[in-house]
Amino acid sequence: MEYPVVVAALDIGGTKIAGALLRYAKAGQAPEVVYERQIPTDAKRGGGPVLVTVCDMANSLLAEARARREEVLGIGVSTAGRVDAETGGIAYANEIMPEWTGQPVRDRLEESCEVPVSVLNDVQAHGLGEARWGAARGAQTCMMIAAGTGIGGALIAHGKLVRGNHGFAGEIGHIACSQAVGIPCVCGGSGHLELVASGSGIEARYAEAGGEPVDGAEISRRAAADEPLAHHIIMQAGIALGEAIASITNLLDPDMVVIGGSVPKAGTRWRAAVQEGFERQIPPAQRGLPILAAELGDHAPLVGAAEDLLDTLELER
Amino acid sequence: MEYPVVVAALDIGGTKIAGALLRYAKAGQAPEVVYERQIPTDAKRGGGPVLVTVCDMANSLLAEARARREEVLGIGVSTAGRVDAETGGIAYANEIMPEWTGQPVRDRLEESCEVPVSVLNDVQAHGLGEARWGAARGAQTCMMIAAGTGIGGALIAHGKLVRGNHGFAGEIGHIACSQAVGIPCVCGGSGHLELVASGSGIEARYAEAGGEPVDGAEISRRAAADEPLAHHIIMQAGIALGEAIASITNLLDPDMVVIGGSVPKAGTRWRAAVQEGFERQIPPAQRGLPILAAELGDHAPLVGAAEDLLDTLELER
Repeated sequence: MEYPVVVAALDIGGTKIAGALLRYAKAGQAPEVVYERQIPTDAKRGGGPVLVTVCDMANSLLAEARARREEVLGIGVSTAGRVDAETGGIAYANEIMPEWTGQPVRDRLEESCEVPVSVLNDVQAHGLGEARWGAARGAQTCMMIAAGTGIGGALIAHGKLVRGNHGFAGEIGHIACSQAVGIPCVCGGSGHLELVASGSGIEARYAEAGGEPVDGAEISRRAAADEPLAHHIIMQAGIALGEAIASITNLLDPDMVVIGGSVPKAGTRWRAAVQEGFERQIPPAQRGLPILAAELGDHAPLVGAAEDLLDTLELER
Repeated sequence: MEYPVVVAALDIGGTKIAGALLRYAKAGQAPEVVYERQIPTDAKRGGGPVLVTVCDMANSLLAEARARREEVLGIGVSTAGRVDAETGGIAYANEIMPEWTGQPVRDRLEESCEVPVSVLNDVQAHGLGEARWGAARGAQTCMMIAAGTGIGGALIAHGKLVRGNHGFAGEIGHIACSQAVGIPCVCGGSGHLELVASGSGIEARYAEAGGEPVDGAEISRRAAADEPLAHHIIMQAGIALGEAIASITNLLDPDMVVIGGSVPKAGTRWRAAVQEGFERQIPPAQRGLPILAAELGDHAPLVGAAEDLLDTLELER
């Protein structure tokens, strides 16, 4: 492709919609966020009105680009919910985004903006962003883990995002975890990673063991202040995630694993537990795996969405 | 590439070395094995003499092709041991192939035969063969599981084999398994899949529970004859593999999973246990995953090795 290139990127979440212009100055150089803004999603309005707001945001980004005399190559979208790779519509979104399921995001944006549009799940966009220009820059095989309220992730192979058959690739919330054996999961199974290693899992295990019903951030604070139960639950969460990283590494043999999301805010002892769980379970030849913290923060899904657009257009880089 | 195309393929194992000529008649059509032979590896001679035999076998395949007035595009090699993707040499082989570690398979064959050579681990070659022309034909995302003495596998993403950072991708013997919790593994970890679901695991668990020290095939026969302990161990092996397939599916969202190797000979009740373990643990949206039996038999690694050569040459297909 001919540099410089400008791509508009949108990140649609349950709380806010972020929009940005990303400028790729030259080959091999990270894109720069040259303009960004965000507005509340006000998701309770329902998916139809939200999509209208998304189109308005996209058009305002294109107008901003025109004012800067930059031509926009297209729009990359990162969104909450599972994306139908064929249609660019929303295959499924949960109750945080009512009626977002079924919204034809790509078609509506292409119609409204008259530029090419690509649409990707936000956790996958986050992972792709980190793989291309963040902690996993240059990775050919990589797992990005988003440990927040739930546990999700994104999988990179051959340097490209793997979407999988239904768009679920990179999910790891429901993989087997020895720390969770016997605990029933909302999915119908039991013993899954999310039950002990996610924010909601940490809260549930803490309350179940007799702790007050407080949020994960408070449990982390109590653990840091050496409250025994909080410390135990946070360490268990770290060990569980580390053991899961060992399982994932045994299967993928990744160049590195990147961890993002809010759970890492639990701090250095949690991080040490992740390492302990990993080293406990990984065969010796793979013990050197780099386990890295995500680097791009809120920009990661925007960068990933822009990268997905460039991948979709199959431009030489 | 211009059809027809002929590729020589070698499959180097601890017991035998198989060689074949594969002919691709036209685009979209499976390659045909037009000639094949095999000789004993006699691995105890050591890696150096084995590599000499491998070169002789390769040259005899090229001579056979010349006699048939076919030009050979190159040689695809499937071999026991872990392959260094950069050098095409053997990064590590176990005691079944003494001194096979370090053998420069690709370089020596290229020197001896003067055609392009690619080298791939045999389980990965098996998986690539099945993904291209076997049970997983046309798969973009696929996991092939080889359940034999140990448990290995091969991972396909974007239609291409994933080798991973050290050539380990597709290994699943050491992923977490709730049926194995607490059982120590030779790798230093514990609770790993191989400990209950592989042939050696089945034998160990049967003996540990008071069964006679017999081989896996005999345990399968006893299970089929309703010996309670044998039945229990075989069912546990099936459940464990099914649960592992659920973990793998949660992570990869594959188009399908293919199972090969000797353990499937345990029969229909084992297969039903695999399905039960899978369905127990998989979230509802992914319950429809096809779990298929491998189709290509002994030809799979030869086909995979030939495909790897064509991939390496980056020919349009």
